[in-house]
Amino acid sequence: MNSSLHLPKKGGSFRDQIEAAWAAQGSMLCLGLDPDPKRFPPCLAGTAEPILEFCKAIADSTADLVCAFKPQFAYFASQGAEVQLEKLISYLKTHYPNIPVILDAKRGDIGSTAEHYAIEAFERYGADAVTVNPYMGKDSVEPYLQYAGKGVIILCRTSNPGGSDLQNLNVNQNGALFEKVALLAKEWNQSGQIALVVGATYPAEIARVRSIVGNMPLLIPGIGAQGGDIDATVKSGAIPGHPGVGMIINSSRAILYASADNDFAKAARKVAEQTRDALRAAQLKS
Amino acid sequence: MNSSLHLPKKGGSFRDQIEAAWAAQGSMLCLGLDPDPKRFPPCLAGTAEPILEFCKAIADSTADLVCAFKPQFAYFASQGAEVQLEKLISYLKTHYPNIPVILDAKRGDIGSTAEHYAIEAFERYGADAVTVNPYMGKDSVEPYLQYAGKGVIILCRTSNPGGSDLQNLNVNQNGALFEKVALLAKEWNQSGQIALVVGATYPAEIARVRSIVGNMPLLIPGIGAQGGDIDATVKSGAIPGHPGVGMIINSSRAILYASADNDFAKAARKVAEQTRDALRAAQLKS
Repeated sequence: MNSSLHLPKKGGSFRDQIEAAWAAQGSMLCLGLDPDPKRFPPCLAGTAEPILEFCKAIADSTADLVCAFKPQFAYFASQGAEVQLEKLISYLKTHYPNIPVILDAKRGDIGSTAEHYAIEAFERYGADAVTVNPYMGKDSVEPYLQYAGKGVIILCRTSNPGGSDLQNLNVNQNGALFEKVALLAKEWNQSGQIALVVGATYPAEIARVRSIVGNMPLLIPGIGAQGGDIDATVKSGAIPGHPGVGMIINSSRAILYASADNDFAKAARKVAEQTRDALRAAQLKS
Repeated sequence: MNSSLHLPKKGGSFRDQIEAAWAAQGSMLCLGLDPDPKRFPPCLAGTAEPILEFCKAIADSTADLVCAFKPQFAYFASQGAEVQLEKLISYLKTHYPNIPVILDAKRGDIGSTAEHYAIEAFERYGADAVTVNPYMGKDSVEPYLQYAGKGVIILCRTSNPGGSDLQNLNVNQNGALFEKVALLAKEWNQSGQIALVVGATYPAEIARVRSIVGNMPLLIPGIGAQGGDIDATVKSGAIPGHPGVGMIINSSRAILYASADNDFAKAARKVAEQTRDALRAAQLKS
């Protein structure tokens, strides 16, 4: 790979994009795209590319309310829908060039293999950022950082109960594993490309990560269907003195499946708007 | 998912398959399929499905020498070659039904998303086992275990230098993180479906994992191009009193790219045979 090929235009880095989106959209809401055909409305039955059509309709209906789109790779992979994922990201980048696209694939592999995952995320799919698992260490993260300006969002404290199995173990008598990951991410972040995943279900741990990483962006899943508290999340993840920035707060299912009927896109907009407004209200309180 | 749908026929579980393959093939060598079109021989130029043809030719040339095939997902994903991966696994299962296929995808995600990755690995691709990252904990592993008899191979101590960044941290003042993962894997392994990844580059750590997990199968990358020592690996991973079983020792690039010319399959066989023989010789010494 020749990293000069991948140098984004000025203003085109993930960090620039997300900062511009926070400002222009007035929103920290991220739309998670987890398309499950079993939950699609009747009007999509018989269409040639229902996954693509579903995601496009939801994105078109909510684009002015969000700071990022986050397609979840597994939902496309289970359906053999990689070509629909290619078309979806191309559609999003064409119609909403100012909204970054995060490919949520949680990749984790070494050197040459990780290079192929980076090719997949950034060249094939054209995503602006990808989620990455830190278990294999720094050399499993570096191939993504070679793509100047692209975002690399590392799992730190995940929103599921089992996240505690490893992430909350005390390491070297000096804090939890997730805190060590936050420290390493800060150290690895020489180019400003790194962000961290911290679940909304553990607000005290969001606050701890924020205190470690300064103004690094946090991708926060777990509000909506997973039940994370919006007020506590926004308060914990805020950058002191800078309301309305620093967090990419994801909701997927609560928005996507707000209605099981043909009014799904309109219903999704309503829930997305309520969620954006709840996030804004929480900012004022925090 | 209805787990009864996924109940394999008697003798068809990953554990049964790999035990039968160790015995019948007299080999602990696993053929890693990491197809990189840049390294393909001239005779494949212009073919419609070069990745599939390359992998089929190598597999046909080495099938009597190996206990497992391990396609590496990243190399297919970077090329948009998921359909070739489907065809490859279907070909392998048709022509070599007694050799298990491990999909090396290192998946790591929670509940409903992990269910979609399990659908991808076991229903779409028809793999016998999949590699999984433990960072997100038990509930990120369980969806794969719902497929009775399928193998779930959890990363423990990986072969890359950066693996030490997290995996060698001391946890709860009671050993390294990779040892904790081995203990958890043993605890989670109620159905005998779990195996562990331990790199050949750290033989002392293979021995430590073996002492924790009893006779659990170990998938060991890192010999061949990565330079792991065969004698030390086989000695460290052996199950006392049971030579020739317990390890799935992977080599990819050293076999696949033994020749850059049109004799690639023949050259691959030669290296695979030498490697199998070196593994056998090491068994006698250990």
